[in-house]
Amino acid sequence: MPLNMPTELQLSLPPWMRPWLRAHSRRRFADVAARMEVAVELATHNVARRTGGPFGAAVFDRRDGRLIAAGVNLVVAARGAHWHAEVVALALAQRRLRTHDLAAAGDYELVTSVEPCLMCLGATLASGVRSLVCGARGADAEAIGFDEGPKPTHWSAELRRRGLAVQRDVKRPAARRVLRDYAAAGGPIYLAQRGA
Amino acid sequence: MPLNMPTELQLSLPPWMRPWLRAHSRRRFADVAARMEVAVELATHNVARRTGGPFGAAVFDRRDGRLIAAGVNLVVAARGAHWHAEVVALALAQRRLRTHDLAAAGDYELVTSVEPCLMCLGATLASGVRSLVCGARGADAEAIGFDEGPKPTHWSAELRRRGLAVQRDVKRPAARRVLRDYAAAGGPIYLAQRGA
Repeated sequence: MPLNMPTELQLSLPPWMRPWLRAHSRRRFADVAARMEVAVELATHNVARRTGGPFGAAVFDRRDGRLIAAGVNLVVAARGAHWHAEVVALALAQRRLRTHDLAAAGDYELVTSVEPCLMCLGATLASGVRSLVCGARGADAEAIGFDEGPKPTHWSAELRRRGLAVQRDVKRPAARRVLRDYAAAGGPIYLAQRGA
Repeated sequence: MPLNMPTELQLSLPPWMRPWLRAHSRRRFADVAARMEVAVELATHNVARRTGGPFGAAVFDRRDGRLIAAGVNLVVAARGAHWHAEVVALALAQRRLRTHDLAAAGDYELVTSVEPCLMCLGATLASGVRSLVCGARGADAEAIGFDEGPKPTHWSAELRRRGLAVQRDVKRPAARRVLRDYAAAGGPIYLAQRGA
């Protein structure tokens, strides 16, 4: 009798990301503006290539500005509600550095084109990154219909209280533009159909 | 030049879970007490087999009581801070049902041996389960040193407001016992070393 219950999970980044990563792997991203351009570019490509939602994220080494790992939203493509760009980037960084705790490996920063939702806030805290940099606001994502979840009112203060540096509104107009263009083009706003 | 950046993620359940799943795949779990016994048993096995932390979770079909998918905490083993038992169970259920939105597929329930942390609250909301059943309290996990994160004070009310049924304290003493036994045996309390 075959076992009908799955025992394995797999995730592959979209094919366009492989050459993109190769082109970015030797570069140095010296400041948060340069790093946010990477996250926004990932979100832009993800929409243009129709591989997912308008969200991009990346993990950088703050000591030398190297790109460690990159993620895009793959919820629909990978059939997994947890595959937000931030979780994808953090998971790949943890795989690359061979640890569940990035703080034990060095000084790493998560840069995300849109502020983390409730789940990604928790994933950020658990990941061991020491710094979080955000582009568009959660309200910008909610303005086109996405649900950020019941985040703590003072979530950035809560993160800082736990030792994370937090910067918001870095290149917010560019990051917000990706959201608006996605909505204007009729991109799917996938939400769990709770109580429907 | 080989690409040093990872582009794939994989997760395998511990080998002991395959026969365990086979033994449970044809059974029916009629009520929340029977389902919680499954989650607590998963947590117990995960500690005894030394495959991870003292947390177990499972997704059930509320229409017929079938077990759809099961998860245990694999943070350290799989080197991924996001592989909490709830995320593993939800991800496997979404894979089995071929959708990111379990609400679109039917009436599913997440049963977890310990209340969800901040990240898992978000993952639960995003998953499309219509019901959440919890054993031990978040405070029970924090009592042995785990960090639940800055959860909304009235998180169960927030979930109910979004259409999820929530039951707490189902077989709490049995679920709490797994936590206490784990701590007493010196099991690792993995936390991101933020600000260390």
